[in-house]
Amino acid sequence: MRSKEIKRFFSEVRKKTEAICRPLAIEDYSVQPVVDVSPPKWHLAHTTWFFEQFILVPYKKEYSLYNEDYSYLFNSYYNNAGERVLRPNRGLMTRPTVEEVYSYRGYVTTAVEMLLEEAPDDTIINLVEIGIHHEQQHQELLHYDIKYILGNQPTFPSYETAEILTEVERQKKLIAIEEGVYTIGHRESTFCFDNELGVHKTYIQPFLISETVVTNGEYLEFIEDGGYEDFNLWHADGWDFIRKNKITAPLYWYKTKGTWHYYNGKGLEKINKNLPVMHVSYYEAFAFAEWKQMRLPTEFEWEVAASKLQYGQVWEWTASAYLPYPNFKKAAGALGEYNGKFMVNQHVLRGASVATSDNHSRITYRNFFNPQLRWMFSGIRLAK
Amino acid sequence: MRSKEIKRFFSEVRKKTEAICRPLAIEDYSVQPVVDVSPPKWHLAHTTWFFEQFILVPYKKEYSLYNEDYSYLFNSYYNNAGERVLRPNRGLMTRPTVEEVYSYRGYVTTAVEMLLEEAPDDTIINLVEIGIHHEQQHQELLHYDIKYILGNQPTFPSYETAEILTEVERQKKLIAIEEGVYTIGHRESTFCFDNELGVHKTYIQPFLISETVVTNGEYLEFIEDGGYEDFNLWHADGWDFIRKNKITAPLYWYKTKGTWHYYNGKGLEKINKNLPVMHVSYYEAFAFAEWKQMRLPTEFEWEVAASKLQYGQVWEWTASAYLPYPNFKKAAGALGEYNGKFMVNQHVLRGASVATSDNHSRITYRNFFNPQLRWMFSGIRLAK
Amino acid sequence: MRSKEIKRFFSEVRKKTEAICRPLAIEDYSVQPVVDVSPPKWHLAHTTWFFEQFILVPYKKEYSLYNEDYSYLFNSYYNNAGERVLRPNRGLMTRPTVEEVYSYRGYVTTAVEMLLEEAPDDTIINLVEIGIHHEQQHQELLHYDIKYILGNQPTFPSYETAEILTEVERQKKLIAIEEGVYTIGHRESTFCFDNELGVHKTYIQPFLISETVVTNGEYLEFIEDGGYEDFNLWHADGWDFIRKNKITAPLYWYKTKGTWHYYNGKGLEKINKNLPVMHVSYYEAFAFAEWKQMRLPTEFEWEVAASKLQYGQVWEWTASAYLPYPNFKKAAGALGEYNGKFMVNQHVLRGASVATSDNHSRITYRNFFNPQLRWMFSGIRLAK
Amino acid sequence: MRSKEIKRFFSEVRKKTEAICRPLAIEDYSVQPVVDVSPPKWHLAHTTWFFEQFILVPYKKEYSLYNEDYSYLFNSYYNNAGERVLRPNRGLMTRPTVEEVYSYRGYVTTAVEMLLEEAPDDTIINLVEIGIHHEQQHQELLHYDIKYILGNQPTFPSYETAEILTEVERQKKLIAIEEGVYTIGHRESTFCFDNELGVHKTYIQPFLISETVVTNGEYLEFIEDGGYEDFNLWHADGWDFIRKNKITAPLYWYKTKGTWHYYNGKGLEKINKNLPVMHVSYYEAFAFAEWKQMRLPTEFEWEVAASKLQYGQVWEWTASAYLPYPNFKKAAGALGEYNGKFMVNQHVLRGASVATSDNHSRITYRNFFNPQLRWMFSGIRLAK
Repeated sequence: MRSKEIKRFFSEVRKKTEAICRPLAIEDYSVQPVVDVSPPKWHLAHTTWFFEQFILVPYKKEYSLYNEDYSYLFNSYYNNAGERVLRPNRGLMTRPTVEEVYSYRGYVTTAVEMLLEEAPDDTIINLVEIGIHHEQQHQELLHYDIKYILGNQPTFPSYETAEILTEVERQKKLIAIEEGVYTIGHRESTFCFDNELGVHKTYIQPFLISETVVTNGEYLEFIEDGGYEDFNLWHADGWDFIRKNKITAPLYWYKTKGTWHYYNGKGLEKINKNLPVMHVSYYEAFAFAEWKQMRLPTEFEWEVAASKLQYGQVWEWTASAYLPYPNFKKAAGALGEYNGKFMVNQHVLRGASVATSDNHSRITYRNFFNPQLRWMFSGIRLAK
Repeated sequence: MRSKEIKRFFSEVRKKTEAICRPLAIEDYSVQPVVDVSPPKWHLAHTTWFFEQFILVPYKKEYSLYNEDYSYLFNSYYNNAGERVLRPNRGLMTRPTVEEVYSYRGYVTTAVEMLLEEAPDDTIINLVEIGIHHEQQHQELLHYDIKYILGNQPTFPSYETAEILTEVERQKKLIAIEEGVYTIGHRESTFCFDNELGVHKTYIQPFLISETVVTNGEYLEFIEDGGYEDFNLWHADGWDFIRKNKITAPLYWYKTKGTWHYYNGKGLEKINKNLPVMHVSYYEAFAFAEWKQMRLPTEFEWEVAASKLQYGQVWEWTASAYLPYPNFKKAAGALGEYNGKFMVNQHVLRGASVATSDNHSRITYRNFFNPQLRWMFSGIRLAK
Repeated sequence: MRSKEIKRFFSEVRKKTEAICRPLAIEDYSVQPVVDVSPPKWHLAHTTWFFEQFILVPYKKEYSLYNEDYSYLFNSYYNNAGERVLRPNRGLMTRPTVEEVYSYRGYVTTAVEMLLEEAPDDTIINLVEIGIHHEQQHQELLHYDIKYILGNQPTFPSYETAEILTEVERQKKLIAIEEGVYTIGHRESTFCFDNELGVHKTYIQPFLISETVVTNGEYLEFIEDGGYEDFNLWHADGWDFIRKNKITAPLYWYKTKGTWHYYNGKGLEKINKNLPVMHVSYYEAFAFAEWKQMRLPTEFEWEVAASKLQYGQVWEWTASAYLPYPNFKKAAGALGEYNGKFMVNQHVLRGASVATSDNHSRITYRNFFNPQLRWMFSGIRLAK
Repeated sequence: MRSKEIKRFFSEVRKKTEAICRPLAIEDYSVQPVVDVSPPKWHLAHTTWFFEQFILVPYKKEYSLYNEDYSYLFNSYYNNAGERVLRPNRGLMTRPTVEEVYSYRGYVTTAVEMLLEEAPDDTIINLVEIGIHHEQQHQELLHYDIKYILGNQPTFPSYETAEILTEVERQKKLIAIEEGVYTIGHRESTFCFDNELGVHKTYIQPFLISETVVTNGEYLEFIEDGGYEDFNLWHADGWDFIRKNKITAPLYWYKTKGTWHYYNGKGLEKINKNLPVMHVSYYEAFAFAEWKQMRLPTEFEWEVAASKLQYGQVWEWTASAYLPYPNFKKAAGALGEYNGKFMVNQHVLRGASVATSDNHSRITYRNFFNPQLRWMFSGIRLAK
């Protein structure tokens, strides 16, 4: 990427992040209702800290930190921090205020923009590019987290959201893929994350895959057929999970007066049967597939079939655990923590959601989450 | 109390509550760092709800609720609530906003003031009086909670606080009280809480009691003499408590570079040895007394000796469990929940703190907390 | 006590402990189903350790320990232990075996008997006396713990038990006691525990107290009248306790096919309405009294009225928290841990149960338990 | 397998299980120190229940159950149980006694032997074969569980154990495997578990694999080089795991007086540097490989290279998550719960341990455990 282009890209992404937060009241910025949901303020500051720490501090001459405390407070790579008396608890950190964090953002944005005008070398451009993609990942998390924060208010407030879904047809057509050796991984010269590299061959058995994802209507049939009560459909861990947490439907679904509703940007609404089902855990996706006497595709099957699929509204759980590709290499230094250290106890999701940045919506992108998580925009596609 | 007087009293107390919150940023209003600490916004709204629910709704003609949801959201008497989908979790409730809560306060304050101008009968005056005292109790809690919220920021911000203490002399004089039958409880016609009633006689053995409370300097000697390492000084539960929570000093004390500091309104400061020790649990108060080869006074001893004591900077743990007085009667209805239901697993504190409203500082006032709590302004007085 | 008498007393008590364990299978000796229930093997060994540690080691010439490990393994005064790699977890300690523990008992019993034949001085006789009373307290705990262990077998086995109760009349007569100054505490020269000493005066207001304890029949009315669903009857902590643990009846009560049964030595049986209710927590005793519009007596009221009461089948919860008497003194050394360190967060029970040794059944005896415990033989008496 | 052969096989395996328990005292049979460790008594009964439930009840004419309760008590497939009042808690179930369980074993063993003499059809023979292999799996678990039970006695008792390891050479030779398409899964006609079926092709990249497993000596170097303190070597979950549990060495390792010892059948002994390292979690295996700048092999690499490896003393963690093979089919009915429901959150181990039955030691065998478990005989082999 050339320096002019990256500067424009950078500025746009920085603004986009702030636009996502526009519907929030000051009060909404600081809470952390569950451990997986970070306060929006933290996202705003952490993505800024990333540019300051990895780019401005090492590469910008005479750069002076906005605030020394921030390098400690907004570091998500806690492992080498720790000299301070109190560990920052994200949801209780009311200071710095939202206003101060926006001021921090402005300061760093300007400094990076200046750096990008000074004929930066490739190292800097590459780091800025990573920083931008990192911020775009946090944009998607912001969508999830804002929904969780507002969706757990007893008053179910409505807000301006990216959650605008399009109706899909119920599964009609299964696409057949032939067996053979296929190549997996990111082969273009464009940006990708380290976990997509390590291009390699894989042997795929013949399989069928649905062109469309599962709808609310199909999922409702699963519920009404007693899917959540039949342990034969579930992993042992999944069964324990739904029992312990008394789960009987996707996240944000509520049965009121005998009818299923869900919370979305418009408040509490009746389920639309033709939209993709969303907010299911891996356990639920697996159980649904069992009930249909089908299965989830592996991430390799998905990648091989991708060009023939309708996708992009919800992330799709795959049958694949999140593991390194054969030639995976960790980046050196702190950036090396980026992906590798999460490669256990997670499952891969493929595709993209309505909250995903367009440039992240590529067929080699490997998203991943713990099997019990449901607050992200996750859905189901079947194979057999 | 006459209606004019009570109106002035009411207006002052309502303003005072808001003044206590003045040093806060919007962000500070909504967090609940531990279960015992409520968000300041919640205090502001709950004290308002109390007037709306118990006075305006039943007694003000054509009163219309500010917002129907609030009667659910700001009720601390949860036991008969419960029809809603989500239970409000005080620390995650970002809506209504602080601004809306202040507007709610204004609406209710005005309505009560109007009611008090309409020649209210005694029932109303008595209820308003309870509401005012209720709000004053929450004022004291606000002092504790604000300190806890800000004192748990990694940056230890300073703020304008009521925590202005005066140096006291180290224990010098022990006051002797003779044995005999004494009368306990509130006998005047002025306001008191239900737990102070049930005036009754009690037999007191002869005892000595210190004129002053324990200082930071004396407590430091206890720490340095290994008080926190000698299990013989502690209750079994107390020993478990300090082991499990790794407690080695009062709350807000930090040893940095070999010197003890504490957090107060001015940030992190060196310990002043001549101020009263504060933020100790009952377990610590008891262990300190054991170490001094003395004991804590009972609440009856305290009340009998009160006129001869210097008190009023910190609440003082007594040896008495919080139990009903012989003729204690619960008030009817929801107000009956007020005190009686807490009469187990708590210890009584007597006196008053710098955060206590003047009119609550009376010798029959029975404050009470769980023995492990430390975030309130609690100190120690010795007897033997 | 003369040395001959004490020797006979000692031998009888040692045998009695073993007799209590007679119905057990080897497997029953080692489990610890909840933290409050110790394995019978542990009781057998710990009461033996007490004699070895406090009498034989310091006073018996050339005494050699049965096994060095045991002084560590069977010490309940863990606070000064701790040099070992692993802390003994009572319920997982399968070694030493039951057989070895009986052999340890025999060894120590013989050694103490020999010591008692050597014209022991008063110090030794007093210590042996404490040891015997200590063992008798553990005998009562053995009854509770054995019932808990067998009563939590899915097969509800029957066994030979001390739980033989006599029918009592429903409350008929309330005994009136006059107000005045009364003396409390153990005044005779016979044995008592340290917590009964500190004889002192107390002022008692006039009160009425029931001659008999509450029956299963009366308690059943409380259940059927919705006592467990009406939060107005409960302490806040009590309400949380029964909600969290889904408690709707005394421990060991099961509703099968619409009828209440309970587990006792004879297996699962239909409730006998004329027997005293047993296995209730303080919270339940309090709520029952509220429902009856009466209250629990204080421990002082109980002691003053004791001579007029029918008691001795179940321990009776009092309204009194367990606190030191005015002149309470801790014994020196490890024995000082005996009672004082438990004087917080507990309530006093008075009377005696069918599992109590006759010589412990005295009107000054202060038993105590945490308010939520129910596995001991605890019942209810009302006052007002 | 012919019916005669299977009868001999059956009888031998039944006896072997009992032989493994020979070093136990009665007390050792009933405890469950952690949730993953079942009481030996439970293994003895559960493996018996399996034959009774799946073979005798449906196929043996006029078979009468040994005890109706047992079908409930010794069922590990709890999902469809549940009508009883109390759920059996394995570690607290002191009844039936060990003696009764042995009698139950005898009864069922005889009944199965009789059935096998009555010219059984293939269905029965196949089910008995599964039952035998099921019991052999429990034999291996018995070795782990007995070690855990005795190894957590504060006295570290010695006992007769299968843990007899042979010294191995430190890694010297790396075996090179060529890239290509390989076939994976059990292709012979002999017995295997359902998870080994679904024979399929896989593409393997070229790799190197160590001929031998990692020794205690090599692992000690990792410890001494600060492996447990360098978070860069660990998965995020692994780092949390070792921090939270204060893990600084394999299970059963204790540093006493500056020297590392471990517990094995002979009590506490000095580490032998030439034996394979054992009792490590997946997290530790992974971190060790990172430290060596190598990696763990995948289960497919392992299977392809197996014929060239020295293995059989310890199970070897692979980099592969436990997932179904492409053509995996669940068995019908309750037996279908056998493997499929565990295929999430687990990692595959390959090879065999000294506690494994010879007939289970095959190159297609897929063992699996949660990544944090360490009580099984698990070790490490490196690849790159």
